[in-house]
Amino acid sequence: QSNVTIGGIVDINLAHGSGSIANKSFVGSSGIGASQLRFTGVEDLGGQLRAGFWLDSMLQPDSGAGTPTNTNNQASGGAAALAGSQGLTFNRRSTLSLGGPLGELRLGRDYTPSYWNLPVYDPFGNLGVGSTHTLNGAITGATGVRASNAIAYYYGHAFNAFATGQSLQGLNVGAMAYAGENASNAADAGSGNGASVRVGWTAPAWSVAAATGRTRNVAGDLRQTNLGGAYDFGVVRVMGHLVRDRNGAVTAKGYLLGLTAAVGIHQWRASVSAYETDAPGRPKATKLAVGYVHNLSKRTAVYATGAVIDNEGGAAFGLNQAVTAPNARSRGFDLGVRHSF
Amino acid sequence: QSNVTIGGIVDINLAHGSGSIANKSFVGSSGIGASQLRFTGVEDLGGQLRAGFWLDSMLQPDSGAGTPTNTNNQASGGAAALAGSQGLTFNRRSTLSLGGPLGELRLGRDYTPSYWNLPVYDPFGNLGVGSTHTLNGAITGATGVRASNAIAYYYGHAFNAFATGQSLQGLNVGAMAYAGENASNAADAGSGNGASVRVGWTAPAWSVAAATGRTRNVAGDLRQTNLGGAYDFGVVRVMGHLVRDRNGAVTAKGYLLGLTAAVGIHQWRASVSAYETDAPGRPKATKLAVGYVHNLSKRTAVYATGAVIDNEGGAAFGLNQAVTAPNARSRGFDLGVRHSF
Amino acid sequence: QSNVTIGGIVDINLAHGSGSIANKSFVGSSGIGASQLRFTGVEDLGGQLRAGFWLDSMLQPDSGAGTPTNTNNQASGGAAALAGSQGLTFNRRSTLSLGGPLGELRLGRDYTPSYWNLPVYDPFGNLGVGSTHTLNGAITGATGVRASNAIAYYYGHAFNAFATGQSLQGLNVGAMAYAGENASNAADAGSGNGASVRVGWTAPAWSVAAATGRTRNVAGDLRQTNLGGAYDFGVVRVMGHLVRDRNGAVTAKGYLLGLTAAVGIHQWRASVSAYETDAPGRPKATKLAVGYVHNLSKRTAVYATGAVIDNEGGAAFGLNQAVTAPNARSRGFDLGVRHSF
Repeated sequence: QSNVTIGGIVDINLAHGSGSIANKSFVGSSGIGASQLRFTGVEDLGGQLRAGFWLDSMLQPDSGAGTPTNTNNQASGGAAALAGSQGLTFNRRSTLSLGGPLGELRLGRDYTPSYWNLPVYDPFGNLGVGSTHTLNGAITGATGVRASNAIAYYYGHAFNAFATGQSLQGLNVGAMAYAGENASNAADAGSGNGASVRVGWTAPAWSVAAATGRTRNVAGDLRQTNLGGAYDFGVVRVMGHLVRDRNGAVTAKGYLLGLTAAVGIHQWRASVSAYETDAPGRPKATKLAVGYVHNLSKRTAVYATGAVIDNEGGAAFGLNQAVTAPNARSRGFDLGVRHSF
Repeated sequence: QSNVTIGGIVDINLAHGSGSIANKSFVGSSGIGASQLRFTGVEDLGGQLRAGFWLDSMLQPDSGAGTPTNTNNQASGGAAALAGSQGLTFNRRSTLSLGGPLGELRLGRDYTPSYWNLPVYDPFGNLGVGSTHTLNGAITGATGVRASNAIAYYYGHAFNAFATGQSLQGLNVGAMAYAGENASNAADAGSGNGASVRVGWTAPAWSVAAATGRTRNVAGDLRQTNLGGAYDFGVVRVMGHLVRDRNGAVTAKGYLLGLTAAVGIHQWRASVSAYETDAPGRPKATKLAVGYVHNLSKRTAVYATGAVIDNEGGAAFGLNQAVTAPNARSRGFDLGVRHSF
Repeated sequence: QSNVTIGGIVDINLAHGSGSIANKSFVGSSGIGASQLRFTGVEDLGGQLRAGFWLDSMLQPDSGAGTPTNTNNQASGGAAALAGSQGLTFNRRSTLSLGGPLGELRLGRDYTPSYWNLPVYDPFGNLGVGSTHTLNGAITGATGVRASNAIAYYYGHAFNAFATGQSLQGLNVGAMAYAGENASNAADAGSGNGASVRVGWTAPAWSVAAATGRTRNVAGDLRQTNLGGAYDFGVVRVMGHLVRDRNGAVTAKGYLLGLTAAVGIHQWRASVSAYETDAPGRPKATKLAVGYVHNLSKRTAVYATGAVIDNEGGAAFGLNQAVTAPNARSRGFDLGVRHSF
């Protein structure tokens, strides 16, 4: 039907992680593209007004399972189903938009503006074994990536698009408020309520953006603040971001520096990222990642990514589900195929 | 593919309910349209015969979660998944139809004929904070709205359509039998088995229908009987229904009186509804609701609905998830956008 | 969108099973067609290369529920959700393929090659009350039909097709390896890992194939070996298969002999199948099944199937959810409609 566009990605890989305690070999997914099935559409209402919807489901195509969403922006709203029984939810994005010359009003579940600098300024787009450790190690809780029950306003990006990550030239703004939806007489009445804002500027060859967000939490608020930028030299694009997060009394800081290089159908990617908290011992991990993408077409690519992570101060991050001892190293790689439809 | 039509509704609103004990503010859905994603199709078999299917899933677009179905027409068949993990089910309707000049045979899960008078003769269509209290307070159990494992026959309505709710001129009939599917040696062998019938007449300016249904239940049968009608004066359409339900030893009665008024792109709605049971104290609640729909196009509308409910005899119904004390009042409103695709 | 083809089957029936202990009457599904909703597509990459995906979900259209998948090829990866809450998963098949003149590489979840002889050489295609008892009684565990986390290679069949079941003329080969994805230091580190291979030959009037598979299991490996063939006499097609399975210390053997006969829009089916294990008592069951399919079009059919099963050696298999005592008989029938879209 002409009112609906169906699209998606299937990305499946052979993955391996090695750590000092246990290794893991598996068939994984979403190495360079987030496996998804989505239903979207835009209606022209006349007078420069538009309506749009976006229903987007994260897939696990290695097993056919779906993935859970989070209903209340708190840990209690995102339970895992028993293995094998998790069905499809529109957890990646589920929104209804009204737009005009002054911007877009968007209701539902979506990325928080304070998340966007992490994938936009990561050569690996927060996907696969090379994903920035400023995300993988983050202490930002249930709303560190997406929020449900949100009202958002966007300016300076394409209508019903991938929000502030798909910005137009010039100024772009994203602002969101979201609700935890607890009863007013509950002890944690305000938990899960939050707000997030991002302001950026996009030029032909470069872009920068700063963002911050806060989610109320009965055990201590969750804060996420970051700054990112990229410069496109032509063949090579360099990028980086700085983050400063807080979960109650614990504060964390991190950075990423990375680049992508594209020649014809070949793309190379590399990054170094680190994240450190002020919890006892000051646990810190530093990750180095390199990757290659071979585009068979605009829609289909084969890829290889490798990464190594070094732990300090008691940190024990393993890559690709490997288990590693505190302060030990872990390695991992992905070897896969991505197909968009 | 030409054999399948994909359609749906995304309806998201800002909702608030206030009660004497606790208030609730949240981002809700399905204020005037039932958020859904559906796959439907009709095949012409020749000789006036047709086959059709309808797979229809209720969405919660504020979080992207799905909603559960009921597999056996009993309370045991409709468990709730853990918050966040509920995937898509075709719980709204999942049917296969064969039709000819004598009517339609429909198999699967669908509305029961004895439910239809409630939405058809409610200005709010049983959706949102204004929905008739003859539904919201109803004691009709697991099959008060839909039944699984059903065999139904329809006459006098469009093929593979919204059943007796989308009736043609003249006589229309809906009849359904459904199975609880218990083992024959179980103590509650017959529970969940039931039957439901609705007979109506539709004229250009008015329609009436009467319906009754019974579901076997080991703790006492569930009965649902109602009568509804509407008259269209042109700008204003008035409607009403009377209900008489039974759950084991408890009997209930209720009514709705309402109207819709449409001028161009503006639609107003109003209703008063009440429901009273003969449980100790004779709990009763009476609801007054008013609403406005502003159509931006045929597919997209913005809307506002407000309602107030008065409790008596120990009843304690809160609107929009507010919690109110017995015999206390509750208020609520919805402010939202509905988009059909 | 042109990149995606949506298709599926809705098959709903009236089913009954009778046994010596309890009978069951219910509205069932998938009597002659596996109820499903699928999203598929193929991209031509040029140079004889192609990419394809297949996302296929098993439906229960009598209630609208989905069905679980299995995430790790072990019993622990296939939990059942609470009744009513099971959402859609792409459990039937979830694959990404790359193909060229030398064959097809396929990643994800799919049928195991060692399963295929059971449906391909069963007149009832392993569906409904007439399904071969070499499947229904099988001791082959979590990977007896499908495996997740698989890497497969196919030769001699149509690209992105129903694998070795949709073979081209001449030699066809299917080979698959799959992973249980346990941590390397787990007690059952290798459980769920396995491999499966099938080799066949297809001629215009006949086909044969042999297959074997093994899944590692900490309680004793699971093995599945079978041989099947069919000969098409024109109106009548005869077929049969022999199986030899193993689950730890228990060995089983079985056979099916069957035929289909098609004249115009009429199709008849009949089979006898048996399965016996060397568990104490040597439990064995023998099933006789007959069916008729009346095609209303290429896409729509009505059908009736009846079957009887005789138990020996302590076996107690009931048909259509009937419960029967050890060594007692059970009978069942399906009466339904199948519609493909």
